[in-house]
Amino acid sequence: MKPIQVGLLGIGVVGGGVWDVLKRNAGEIERRAGRAIRISQVADKDRRRASSIVKKNARVLDDAFALVKDEKIDIVIELIGGTTVAKELVLEAIRRGKHVVTANKALLATHGNEIFAAAQKNDVMVGFEASVAGGIPIIKALREGLAANRVEWIAGIINGTSNFILSEMRDKGSSFGDALRNAQRRGYAEADPTFDIEGVDAAHKLTILSALAFGIPMQFRKAYTEGISTLTQQDIRYAEELGYRIKLLGVTKRTAKGIELRVHPTLIPAKRLIANVEGVMNAILVKGDAVGATMYYGAGAGSQPTASAVVADLLDITRLITADPEHRVPHLAFQPDRLAKDPILPIAAVQTSYYLRMRVKDRPGVLADITRILADLEISIDAMVQKEPGEGEKSVDIVMLTHRAVEKNVIVAMARIEKLPTVLGKVTRIRLEELL
Amino acid sequence: MKPIQVGLLGIGVVGGGVWDVLKRNAGEIERRAGRAIRISQVADKDRRRASSIVKKNARVLDDAFALVKDEKIDIVIELIGGTTVAKELVLEAIRRGKHVVTANKALLATHGNEIFAAAQKNDVMVGFEASVAGGIPIIKALREGLAANRVEWIAGIINGTSNFILSEMRDKGSSFGDALRNAQRRGYAEADPTFDIEGVDAAHKLTILSALAFGIPMQFRKAYTEGISTLTQQDIRYAEELGYRIKLLGVTKRTAKGIELRVHPTLIPAKRLIANVEGVMNAILVKGDAVGATMYYGAGAGSQPTASAVVADLLDITRLITADPEHRVPHLAFQPDRLAKDPILPIAAVQTSYYLRMRVKDRPGVLADITRILADLEISIDAMVQKEPGEGEKSVDIVMLTHRAVEKNVIVAMARIEKLPTVLGKVTRIRLEELL
Repeated sequence: MKPIQVGLLGIGVVGGGVWDVLKRNAGEIERRAGRAIRISQVADKDRRRASSIVKKNARVLDDAFALVKDEKIDIVIELIGGTTVAKELVLEAIRRGKHVVTANKALLATHGNEIFAAAQKNDVMVGFEASVAGGIPIIKALREGLAANRVEWIAGIINGTSNFILSEMRDKGSSFGDALRNAQRRGYAEADPTFDIEGVDAAHKLTILSALAFGIPMQFRKAYTEGISTLTQQDIRYAEELGYRIKLLGVTKRTAKGIELRVHPTLIPAKRLIANVEGVMNAILVKGDAVGATMYYGAGAGSQPTASAVVADLLDITRLITADPEHRVPHLAFQPDRLAKDPILPIAAVQTSYYLRMRVKDRPGVLADITRILADLEISIDAMVQKEPGEGEKSVDIVMLTHRAVEKNVIVAMARIEKLPTVLGKVTRIRLEELL
Repeated sequence: MKPIQVGLLGIGVVGGGVWDVLKRNAGEIERRAGRAIRISQVADKDRRRASSIVKKNARVLDDAFALVKDEKIDIVIELIGGTTVAKELVLEAIRRGKHVVTANKALLATHGNEIFAAAQKNDVMVGFEASVAGGIPIIKALREGLAANRVEWIAGIINGTSNFILSEMRDKGSSFGDALRNAQRRGYAEADPTFDIEGVDAAHKLTILSALAFGIPMQFRKAYTEGISTLTQQDIRYAEELGYRIKLLGVTKRTAKGIELRVHPTLIPAKRLIANVEGVMNAILVKGDAVGATMYYGAGAGSQPTASAVVADLLDITRLITADPEHRVPHLAFQPDRLAKDPILPIAAVQTSYYLRMRVKDRPGVLADITRILADLEISIDAMVQKEPGEGEKSVDIVMLTHRAVEKNVIVAMARIEKLPTVLGKVTRIRLEELL
């Protein structure tokens, strides 16, 4: 089958990520969709940059409208940003019967109603998973995964810049100004950080989430927005003493009188999972009447995470316009004739880290014997605790954490250690994962 | 349009939840799908119980095969459990061209390949979102939301019973046996808890996740399974001292040599978000090459959370066999002609809790004045801290947390408090959400 033809508007940070992901994972993506997805045209005002990225693999133009009008393009990805030219381009693409994928939350929060009406009229889809919380598939969760629920409320950390600043202020005792400058140095905040720190970006995203949760039109202008620039160390400390953390939260809630739609610094109990979301990460808590509270966590911005969402939308659209309905998403995620043959490894071949506890006689040379056995089997020790013997006790506990090792070797090591006359009983072994 | 006709096999805990959710949220579900979904037949060996639940609203039979063979049924929900009769029923439904929704992880982990092949051949869908992690839409996230990614690994707390027991052992210092009995008293563990505590249930679920992540067939028999029944307080304490928590983790990872597929107690760094998932909750960490680490958290079992996933699958199937492809999932989650008219509330009408900080002269009667103002405006105080004055200081900080109040009243109260001659400067106000 002919590959889906995609036109990319803007090959900057996110656009470059989309190009990379589609290239790197082309094989798996085709195994999933049953059809290749190909960016055949790229429009960028910096044609040289664009050409240096795509080489000869796509046509490069500087006229975005020319791309949108090209009959060969099936899907247009809008990554230009802003709400003026981007809007015209998106509407033009829709009028020409092209599907659109966009990461542009400002555009959707302010002109979404018009754009979706045009899409409906022209029988095209507008994918916008990338517009909220980067690679976290929260749009799909709300529209499909949680569709059985009457959503009661949503509370989200949906601006990574602000969350980074608040984490810095709490962890390091930095002032707001210092934390902001640190965020700018690391590239987490723009030269003009207003949209991030004053809650405007979060309000754009919250407007979208609110519309999806409650089935209401986009109403960004009615959102209440308060940023973090006036927060002080003093309040962060007092909140901490009372068992709370301060986060910039987007909250939208259905009440008997209407819908709450608000972004502001918020104290939340320190023991809640979402209170422990640090740095530039995002997390969204959704309360449904059937499912209860569910949370979605991940990178809320950045080239590859945002590209992950853009490409997921491309796949969705490709599947819908390609497959029979009942074969849209394969049962095991990949086309049944394209399953992989990777073997499942026996546990002996697995590599992980280990916690080893053993009881030994409190006598010189014991540790040397044990560590030699481990070294011979290429098991290296990351941390070790030897407990002091209790009064009158003649044996002690030794606890070791190992670096990554092959399980087979650990089994052999344990057997050898257990045979040492200075070791009492069995070695307790629990596996350890750093999850990084 | 004629409602989708659904046949429900088994109206126990989960089946009853499905019946409830479909009834309670019928209006919203039709606004989403553009078509009503109706359980028209229920088969249960306990006909009296079934009749007492469904009243006259569905036909009740005790012969599940008769239901499956009924030509009027479009979708069969299998909630009988087990891998023998359930398998025959599912295959019979598929052969008769009916779509199937099931929560049966044991069935899919052991006979999934055969079932999916039959579904593919007969052009029907088998939905199984409810088979892993209850209401958390993790199947959809893996198959669709993260489809751009080459998945590197998954690590999940996917058995609530074990996680509850481990939480109890750590929090309360309980022995394994006491924690298990507590879980049984609360209905979190079965009379025979083997499947939960020995990791078999988690291995069923992990087998499904692994197949979806890596595009491999179901291979439950090759999963390594180790439970929590031999864990001791001692190891939990030692792990804690070293900065780790012990969780029963399902881990599946792609390596150069093959796929790791293993369930076992695992030390994980205490500072990881997933290490702080307590009680019967589930959480799944997915590492993708583009998106990085994402996490999905929620109730992994229970009547309504599991029903949430079953009904989401019903909606998915209904949409696919009802709508034109490009109108499958409405842009704003609900059909464009069925958006709600709920107003967005102005911030003054919002109700939440508040943190109020003020600087006051260290003098008798100050607090009485402030609390009277709050009481007059129906703002009640949940907690208060008055700081000791520093040496030579004549003013002190007062910090108050309020119960829920109307923002308008808080604004008035702040203005009145600021006018008190004993109050210095402005009152700092930050909103507070318990997120429960």
